[in-house]
This record gives sequence, structure tokens and C-alpha cells, in this order.
Amino acid sequence: MPSGWLCRRLRVPPRPGHSLHGMTDAVRDASQRKTDTIARLDGDADVWVATASAGRPHLVPLSLAWDGAHVILATPANSPTARNAAASGQIRLALGTSRDVTIIEAAAEVMPCAEAADPIARCYAARTGWDPRHEDMPHVYLVAAPRTMHAWNSLAEINGRTIMRDGQWTPA
Amino acid sequence: MPSGWLCRRLRVPPRPGHSLHGMTDAVRDASQRKTDTIARLDGDADVWVATASAGRPHLVPLSLAWDGAHVILATPANSPTARNAAASGQIRLALGTSRDVTIIEAAAEVMPCAEAADPIARCYAARTGWDPRHEDMPHVYLVAAPRTMHAWNSLAEINGRTIMRDGQWTPA
Repeated sequence: MPSGWLCRRLRVPPRPGHSLHGMTDAVRDASQRKTDTIARLDGDADVWVATASAGRPHLVPLSLAWDGAHVILATPANSPTARNAAASGQIRLALGTSRDVTIIEAAAEVMPCAEAADPIARCYAARTGWDPRHEDMPHVYLVAAPRTMHAWNSLAEINGRTIMRDGQWTPA
Repeated sequence: MPSGWLCRRLRVPPRPGHSLHGMTDAVRDASQRKTDTIARLDGDADVWVATASAGRPHLVPLSLAWDGAHVILATPANSPTARNAAASGQIRLALGTSRDVTIIEAAAEVMPCAEAADPIARCYAARTGWDPRHEDMPHVYLVAAPRTMHAWNSLAEINGRTIMRDGQWTPA
């Protein structure tokens, strides 16, 4: 419950689970949150990417692409992000801002850019304007299949924030 | 090297370590990046907080306070963030946006809000407008001492991005 996150915005003590004071934004249903999330997946320039090794978290912003089923990222092969994701297969992404966010928990497959299938590489290059296969420093793609998604833009939206579970969009 | 992060902004393939094309922003020295970072620590409403358990990363936005030496966060005691930070003692924070960021690696001490020293509690309540000691659900403070900071707002600022090392600000 990210009540600590919203307290400053609300200027009142948050009441977890209680009615919201002073907020006038409409609470979105799951269908709208899914629509808004896909719009960000299709259009945002970058995403926050968290990985981990033995209790040690790593966090960087990366450009992203979306092929309709996978978030595609690229980073140097020797980066902590690449190494962590390759070892654990798990990444967590934050799309949007702290005030309008979708948190995505995803299973990540890490592959050398030089060995990736063309559709992955083309999707990434088309979206970002950059082809990491052309870099001298070896890069990898992280191809991330979302498993869970939580989307919220206010305390009122904490309930109903799960819009994907086990890789399936939740019904509206 | 977050070259993948910047490629879309630049609209040209990034050249890690090479001169920047088309950017007109001045490259800040360490002193300016420190000043800008402290301004964010003093004024921003929230921060991205990454923690981990084994190889599983967790990522949430939280409100923050800054007492001049520690970032102070608050979250329910049973949250993944609280449990991860208590177990590993390590957190990573992203302050700002993906285009103007300070990444902070910090040692975190986790304490029940009810047991925290008054200066900690007062600092947090004054900054955020919320006192978690008044919540029915038990909360904890995460009191985070920065160890390493990296600040950059462009590819040109990748060099010189370390502005704190081993808890000490780097010289300008």
C-alpha cells in the first residue's frame, strides 16, 4: 500500500482503504487502465528497469520497444542489468511517473543482439531509432514477457490496481 | 552505459564515449550535479525505490524526506520493500526523471515508526505532511545513508556521473 507515496500530493494524512479526500479524478476501470498502459507501452520513450543479485537491487532507465506481447530492452552485455536478468530471469519495470504508474513484473529472456530473431531486432530499431547490433561493444536484448501489472494514478485507484495476473489481462 | 536509454531522445545512434551530436545543454561539473541533486532531495515529492530478495527485484514510488544525510522513507512493515530492505540492508533510489536522474545506492536501516527517534519522525512528517506513527497498520521508516550517487541528464554527462563514492561527495 503506497500510502507514504501519496501523502504529499494529498496534503492530508492518507487513510489506507478509506474514501479519498479532495480528489476529483475519476477512478478508471481495468479496461481503461489497460488501454492507458498499452498507450505507454506503444509510445513512451523509456522505462525504469529494476533487477537484482543476492538482495542487491539495480535500477536504470532504458529505452523500450513493445511488440504486443514483450517489452524489448537493450543494454551492454556486461552491464549489471544484463547480468542480473540473465541469472535470475526476473525484472521489474515502472512505466510512467510516480503519479501515474504501471508496475510490470516480467520474466526476462536475455540474448546477444547478434543472435536475436529479426522481428525482435527490427521492432527495437524501429521504435528507438537505434540498432544495438551495430555497436562495437557487445549488447544484449532483454525480451520481457509481463506476468503481473499494477496500474494506479491515485490513492483511489489502489483497489483494482491489478490489471494483469499470470500473464493474462484481468477482466474489466 | 545507458546508451539504449538515450537513443530515442537523440534520434541518432548513440556512440558510447564519443562526442554528442545535436545536444546543446551544457555539461555540468560535479559541483553543479551535487547542487541539483540536493535540490531534488530537498524538494521532490517522491522517489523510485528498488529493493530485492535474492534475484527478485521490487520497485515502488515512495514519498521522501531528507535530513541532510539520510533519505527517509516510510512504508507498511509487511510490504515487500520493508522486508527486503530489512533483510539485505540495501536499497537503490532513482530521483528525478529518466532524462535528468540521480541514482543513489544506499545502506538502509529499517525501524518501526513507533520506535524511531523524534528527529527522524519529525523530519518525515514535516516534509510529507503525513505521520505514519498515526496509522493503525504498523509502518516502518527506511533511513537510507547514500553510499554512491550517479547523476546525468544526457549522454554527454555519462562521463563524470559519479558524484558520491563511499558516502563522500566527489570533488568538483
